[in-house]
Amino acid sequence: MGGSGRLSPFVPKSPDFAARVRASFARQGAMAHIGAELARIEPGEVDITVTQRPEITQQHGYFHGGIVGMVADSAGGYAAFSLMPADASVLSVEYKINFIAPAEGDRLIARGRVLKPGRTLCICQVDVAVSRDGRETPCAAMLQTVMALAGRSDRPPHVASPSRTG
Amino acid sequence: MGGSGRLSPFVPKSPDFAARVRASFARQGAMAHIGAELARIEPGEVDITVTQRPEITQQHGYFHGGIVGMVADSAGGYAAFSLMPADASVLSVEYKINFIAPAEGDRLIARGRVLKPGRTLCICQVDVAVSRDGRETPCAAMLQTVMALAGRSDRPPHVASPSRTG
Amino acid sequence: MGGSGRLSPFVPKSPDFAARVRASFARQGAMAHIGAELARIEPGEVDITVTQRPEITQQHGYFHGGIVGMVADSAGGYAAFSLMPADASVLSVEYKINFIAPAEGDRLIARGRVLKPGRTLCICQVDVAVSRDGRETPCAAMLQTVMALAGRSDRPPHVASPSRTG
Amino acid sequence: MGGSGRLSPFVPKSPDFAARVRASFARQGAMAHIGAELARIEPGEVDITVTQRPEITQQHGYFHGGIVGMVADSAGGYAAFSLMPADASVLSVEYKINFIAPAEGDRLIARGRVLKPGRTLCICQVDVAVSRDGRETPCAAMLQTVMALAGRSDRPPHVASPSRTG
Repeated sequence: MGGSGRLSPFVPKSPDFAARVRASFARQGAMAHIGAELARIEPGEVDITVTQRPEITQQHGYFHGGIVGMVADSAGGYAAFSLMPADASVLSVEYKINFIAPAEGDRLIARGRVLKPGRTLCICQVDVAVSRDGRETPCAAMLQTVMALAGRSDRPPHVASPSRTG
Repeated sequence: MGGSGRLSPFVPKSPDFAARVRASFARQGAMAHIGAELARIEPGEVDITVTQRPEITQQHGYFHGGIVGMVADSAGGYAAFSLMPADASVLSVEYKINFIAPAEGDRLIARGRVLKPGRTLCICQVDVAVSRDGRETPCAAMLQTVMALAGRSDRPPHVASPSRTG
Repeated sequence: MGGSGRLSPFVPKSPDFAARVRASFARQGAMAHIGAELARIEPGEVDITVTQRPEITQQHGYFHGGIVGMVADSAGGYAAFSLMPADASVLSVEYKINFIAPAEGDRLIARGRVLKPGRTLCICQVDVAVSRDGRETPCAAMLQTVMALAGRSDRPPHVASPSRTG
Repeated sequence: MGGSGRLSPFVPKSPDFAARVRASFARQGAMAHIGAELARIEPGEVDITVTQRPEITQQHGYFHGGIVGMVADSAGGYAAFSLMPADASVLSVEYKINFIAPAEGDRLIARGRVLKPGRTLCICQVDVAVSRDGRETPCAAMLQTVMALAGRSDRPPHVASPSRTG
């Protein structure tokens, strides 16, 4: 994590934001189930990668659109979560995704970043690319609204991916 | 399938539309992987259900938001596919989903229907509900754009869920 | 207003919800500017109509897509506003609109209804039709997220259409 | 126009792309009606600005959300149009917009750019900012799907903003 060279424009409310993102991600059965990994955690920016495996691909070796959506939703949700106070949890209110090319490749990379942080709502953008023999191609774009639930860290009524927090 | 009592307003271009939907769905590894089943196929309307199981749920027994999105995307995609000519295949151009309640229950039901069929593009709406002890609660709403690819039945460059066709 | 014969499933928090919607709408310069009118106000459901005039149409007598979006956004926003407590104001967080047919006709009708009311967020659906010689054709569909701002009735920092409230 | 210093990654199919964008924009009554102007035209990138005036603002001097949506839709539509062949016209299939801050200021700037050009569909992103005393603040983000209609330059059945072409 880190080493990106680019400075995030955001100041996190919780100094251990990266540890909180990692802990929440680890509790997500579905992320483990598809082999997703946290590749980068900065304030307001989170990258998630998935390596190709048969269960999550189409017949022709593409990543399934549902996987693309799920991973992008999580990348944006955790980007928002990284800026929230320690006692908040997070839920996806909604998102819109455009599939811009077949997700054909070895590795999927969803890069989520916060466009606008807010006390209640965060607006996030997620760019998804697929890499093949080391060359990246954009394959999807997402615009997402994420909600912070204050004081809901223990038993949150989450509806979407990045659901639980420490 | 059938038995819905409600008449679909659409006339399918291919008489064996239901068989084509079933054949395409059966080839989708990802749908089988999550235990999704076709529950109803009418011209322009397809329902898909998933029964709860640990791998696809959150810790508290909710269906994961990514599963909700994936199943809804497929229900809308197949609703559109049911109206396409026999040599067409289908891809999701984009969708937007609102999560309106936690998907807490035993069974997820995504009901896709075509709002506007077109030669190239179909606009679909998908209502997703979760049932618990026989009582249904709406949990998500989707608005989706689906594209028909003419003469692409053998080796389609699909990007999203309902990707292959017979 | 009223006379629809259909019962709204919602109970408004403020008994004078219709008067509040009318008062807020009247203060919207932009709605008057395009000749928009409130055609129906029920709890959680608001219809807005616009009659064709040269400034808001395309060369061929269609309603401009921007007008369609603006009117639909307001119909959904006011549908949500009708369920809010008396001291709340309302803003559009986001919306997605699909244009499903040319808006060719004499009169545009946007029918907004609340899919899910919430203390902070309301999810709304808006169906837009155009009528021509008395026959209606659906021309757009919107899925929208609206936010209630509690205790902001005097000087609200609204961003979108249904912006001010009494 | 031009002078941006930044190189567009796209090669236009029509050498007179800028003149075609200007001619189509000039025929749009609605753009003139709200005082919108083309500020920049590069292959795949178009900026549109609007200067504040009473009819298009809220009571508190904000740009109306409907105006923000209309101008953003046009910026993305013309960005796509700039890459299309000379005999094509353009229509907005759909868009999703997030309002990220009140559009409070003297001047609205919508910057549209093509994320993915295609023969039939273009996916565009539009960033909208408002400037006040020379300082810009982002106020909205749009993700949009635009369709090219081949050989429809004379009498196009457009549904959305950037509707007619030369």
